[in-house]
Amino acid sequence: MNNRAVILRNRPPGIAQAEDFVIKNVDVAAPKAGEIVVRNAFLSVEPAMRGWIADAGNYSAPVAIGSVMRALAVGHVVESRDGDYREGDAVAGWFGWQNYATVKADAVVRKVKETDLPISLSLGVLGINGVTAHLALTLIGKPQAGETVLVSTAAGAVGSAAGQIARIFGCRTVGIAGGPEKVKLCLKEFGYEAAFDYRTDNFESDITTACPDGVDIYFDNTAGPISDTVYRHLARGARVIVCGTASVPSWAQWPTGPRVERHLLVKRARMQGFIIFDHMDLYEESVGQLANWVREGKLRYREDILDGIEACPDALAGLYRGENFGKRLIRL
Amino acid sequence: MNNRAVILRNRPPGIAQAEDFVIKNVDVAAPKAGEIVVRNAFLSVEPAMRGWIADAGNYSAPVAIGSVMRALAVGHVVESRDGDYREGDAVAGWFGWQNYATVKADAVVRKVKETDLPISLSLGVLGINGVTAHLALTLIGKPQAGETVLVSTAAGAVGSAAGQIARIFGCRTVGIAGGPEKVKLCLKEFGYEAAFDYRTDNFESDITTACPDGVDIYFDNTAGPISDTVYRHLARGARVIVCGTASVPSWAQWPTGPRVERHLLVKRARMQGFIIFDHMDLYEESVGQLANWVREGKLRYREDILDGIEACPDALAGLYRGENFGKRLIRL
Repeated sequence: MNNRAVILRNRPPGIAQAEDFVIKNVDVAAPKAGEIVVRNAFLSVEPAMRGWIADAGNYSAPVAIGSVMRALAVGHVVESRDGDYREGDAVAGWFGWQNYATVKADAVVRKVKETDLPISLSLGVLGINGVTAHLALTLIGKPQAGETVLVSTAAGAVGSAAGQIARIFGCRTVGIAGGPEKVKLCLKEFGYEAAFDYRTDNFESDITTACPDGVDIYFDNTAGPISDTVYRHLARGARVIVCGTASVPSWAQWPTGPRVERHLLVKRARMQGFIIFDHMDLYEESVGQLANWVREGKLRYREDILDGIEACPDALAGLYRGENFGKRLIRL
Repeated sequence: MNNRAVILRNRPPGIAQAEDFVIKNVDVAAPKAGEIVVRNAFLSVEPAMRGWIADAGNYSAPVAIGSVMRALAVGHVVESRDGDYREGDAVAGWFGWQNYATVKADAVVRKVKETDLPISLSLGVLGINGVTAHLALTLIGKPQAGETVLVSTAAGAVGSAAGQIARIFGCRTVGIAGGPEKVKLCLKEFGYEAAFDYRTDNFESDITTACPDGVDIYFDNTAGPISDTVYRHLARGARVIVCGTASVPSWAQWPTGPRVERHLLVKRARMQGFIIFDHMDLYEESVGQLANWVREGKLRYREDILDGIEACPDALAGLYRGENFGKRLIRL
């Protein structure tokens, strides 16, 4: 088994670039009791990897220099020394940016049961992206029919699911995206009632026009100047879901921005952080619901697939350059 | 009836100073049907008056130039043309900074029923300050026994009640106040387990020492640099009650500060604005509970009483100078 692995070489202050990784040949360890060997089919590329690499306070220990890049992946069990898994099982889990992973069984997030759907979806719309969109929207946002839901990175893996799920709940959905192509994708593919590009001079007036009664739920994956503008348009009783901070390249030098307290006070608004890993008890049920919506055609997705492990090192930086359309994956 | 009233003369960009008001003799209008005439005994001075005066977005229309300064007051009905009120009734309500008020009956917030307690309490610990502390803490904070509750303006009218009520709920309470005298008041009078002065170089290490496991609930009346420091010490799952922004002198030039999104995300924290006027359905029940705690000696209060209507014009600015100890009132 020829195993190539993407190793973190440096811990950059900002977003990891191609040169911060190196690809090495790594032996596949023989599994001990309670371990399995997985052959990865697809590797995930997530905005959250920026945080996993950073030394600054985050919700998990940083990836160690010299170790395989932490990543979700989906593939098949090729050898098992754990009673719960058999050769051939399709599994999604923490298998890293590599061809083969020898891991403890608890690295598996779930067995893939949706054999009628592409296995790659377990890393996107039926993976942490879709589940994050679903649970953050329902648990924090508590969407009511007729409310206006504004989504940042609206064409992205999380945002596109959040917008469509809000629509399933009967909300008016409005998307913010980077560039005309993604705006088009929002409107044609993901059913947003309105969508616009934050990179234009009309950004604030576009919000006013699309959200004349204000924003009831702001599903935010960006923070930064995009959010600063949105905060001025919160409706009374608004909920802001803080799901990601993609527009802030680094928190090593903590950035400043307009203070939010007055908005929250005057609008009696709520702002709350969401991390999927707190809600794994709801994961299986959520995936089941999401899969049904996919089968019914109510929940669409886009994948941005790069081929070969050689694509990994630059894939994360490319995500932050905004070059992907849909969920970014590496196909092995 | 010699009625003197405090009139708003200018709308300053920051905090209204003595010269922004003028005291005038004003006739007492004869009550029409549905109106009452109240002789005020005490007038309230609130930090929120800054917002009521400001032109910037707030939760109520700004006080008109040339009109009597909007204020809560407590007094007695001297004439009634409304079936619900009789001469002699003690009432608290929106009677303004003046000796006599002819108002519609709906200007009354409540009849004062606690005849065993001083009538002035209806403007403080049994008024919007106490009820705000009680409802914001319980509705947003949801305090659990053993949690650490940090309160800013901890010796103030709202803060001192919030700290004591959190203690009644079994929380560890920690107070932030301005200057050694207020810190002493926190410790000796209001039962905080720890309290310290934000005006020292040790402010952040004082938080670390007093809140070694982080801050579960931050009851905030200040925003600004005090809060910026506290945000760095939020515990996982923290709740931030945004109750006031006293340390920000003006939002006409919107101030900036360190971004909060990353704290909220990494700590899965929630930040929410609270305005008492949304919760008037719970007011009567809350005052009843607060009065019982006062009678049981569990809820103490301080009053800072100035005499005569001449004290009004400078009373608000003085509050922002931090010169008061306890609830500031004008006794007529």
